[in-house]
Amino acid sequence: MARTQEAGQDVVVTENREARGPFLVVCEHASNRFPAAFGTLGLSPRARTAHIAWDPGALGVARRLAQLLDAPLVAAGVSRLVYDLNRPPHSAGAMTARSEDYDIPGNLHLGPDERLRRTEAIYLPFHARLRAEIARRLAAGRPPVVVTVHSFTPVWFGKPRTVEFGVIHDADPALALAVVAEAKARTHLDCRLNEPYSAADEVTHTLRLQATPYGLANVMLEIRNDLIADPAAEEAMATGLAPVLKAALAAISRQPEEKAAP
Amino acid sequence: MARTQEAGQDVVVTENREARGPFLVVCEHASNRFPAAFGTLGLSPRARTAHIAWDPGALGVARRLAQLLDAPLVAAGVSRLVYDLNRPPHSAGAMTARSEDYDIPGNLHLGPDERLRRTEAIYLPFHARLRAEIARRLAAGRPPVVVTVHSFTPVWFGKPRTVEFGVIHDADPALALAVVAEAKARTHLDCRLNEPYSAADEVTHTLRLQATPYGLANVMLEIRNDLIADPAAEEAMATGLAPVLKAALAAISRQPEEKAAP
Repeated sequence: MARTQEAGQDVVVTENREARGPFLVVCEHASNRFPAAFGTLGLSPRARTAHIAWDPGALGVARRLAQLLDAPLVAAGVSRLVYDLNRPPHSAGAMTARSEDYDIPGNLHLGPDERLRRTEAIYLPFHARLRAEIARRLAAGRPPVVVTVHSFTPVWFGKPRTVEFGVIHDADPALALAVVAEAKARTHLDCRLNEPYSAADEVTHTLRLQATPYGLANVMLEIRNDLIADPAAEEAMATGLAPVLKAALAAISRQPEEKAAP
Repeated sequence: MARTQEAGQDVVVTENREARGPFLVVCEHASNRFPAAFGTLGLSPRARTAHIAWDPGALGVARRLAQLLDAPLVAAGVSRLVYDLNRPPHSAGAMTARSEDYDIPGNLHLGPDERLRRTEAIYLPFHARLRAEIARRLAAGRPPVVVTVHSFTPVWFGKPRTVEFGVIHDADPALALAVVAEAKARTHLDCRLNEPYSAADEVTHTLRLQATPYGLANVMLEIRNDLIADPAAEEAMATGLAPVLKAALAAISRQPEEKAAP
């Protein structure tokens, strides 16, 4: 039976706004909802539940991680095929016409008016809400650590992927390196840096837009979706990763003192 | 007689939204307006018209530049002492308690609630509006060139400044270097790179937040305010700088082809 998961009926959903922990969790590909205003893009029901439409399991992990870390969660409420919130408006991938071996009929030959409509209806509100959550914490003197949660398909163009947990960084690798070290020490996951993608694949837009300008520690997590295929697996993954993130943050917070020691 | 200049009664003012040229002009310190909701911060009328409250002349130059370049203008409608839009919310300078040799009584001992109130009332709407203008152009496949326009005082802590036109860059120096070269060739201004400030002084927040994440060419202009002390001088400065900016953009647009040539 096809799986769906929705953060809600809005373009962006925020949970745990009053959380007091140091992390802020983001899930750009949380939902495979196709709002009526944009239609179903000519896609079959099967395509609309496939990994091209969303990151299956990512919302469940992100939501539970946010609870365990006492963190706010900002999640998308719209399929990435309508607008991929981890891509800037001038990127072909923002409203992609093809994903893996699927054509996206409703995204072929998009004119500037429709690109603008989706940008204004989805991209701008999502990133404004995320910016507002970050700014609230900055104004309170508590700069948040930004963690984006994604999932990836175990098979890509027919080729199996063996990596289970990918940790991706943009300009500042500090937290990503610490997460890899702690994941290797604390879990049995096959954990790799900058796999199955890296910043060179233009997959770190949210980090660049929201974390780097404020000098916030940040990391993008990619979990193979067969490992989070039901709520119990999502729960187990979040329970395993929460201490990894806490330990990684503690490790990078200690470093300046260690460096300063004689 | 004390000079004032206002972009309007809003926190942010946008002009020439439908402009078709490649530039987008920003003026974060356009106004010395103190909205009733925030009071006058205990400042004398003299302090509220001094350079600490705003960048005198910058709006006039920015507005005329926007016209000459067929560019949109996004300008602040609030004094930088209420919120300095070129600073992030966790910076002491965002709501500074002291500027040059002036105390700002209303900014002493600001609590987190008041810092948040100003952040939400001024910083977030300004930068959301600017982001929206940029995103509109990105969605249309016309990435804008971001130019921020500032002025600086000719005397700082009693010491005269001889630089007349400062050109400041952040991570990407390409446009700034081209502007300096063109200004030296086309004007008689004493033009210098990264004077009287540089990115190391944390004065490039707008560029970092709005231009760098999208890979947009960008530059910050600083004009000594005694050179733009009345509308005729503002007009003359804008008329001199518009061709400098156009020529600088043409120069950096040519470079990739030149590099690719054998």
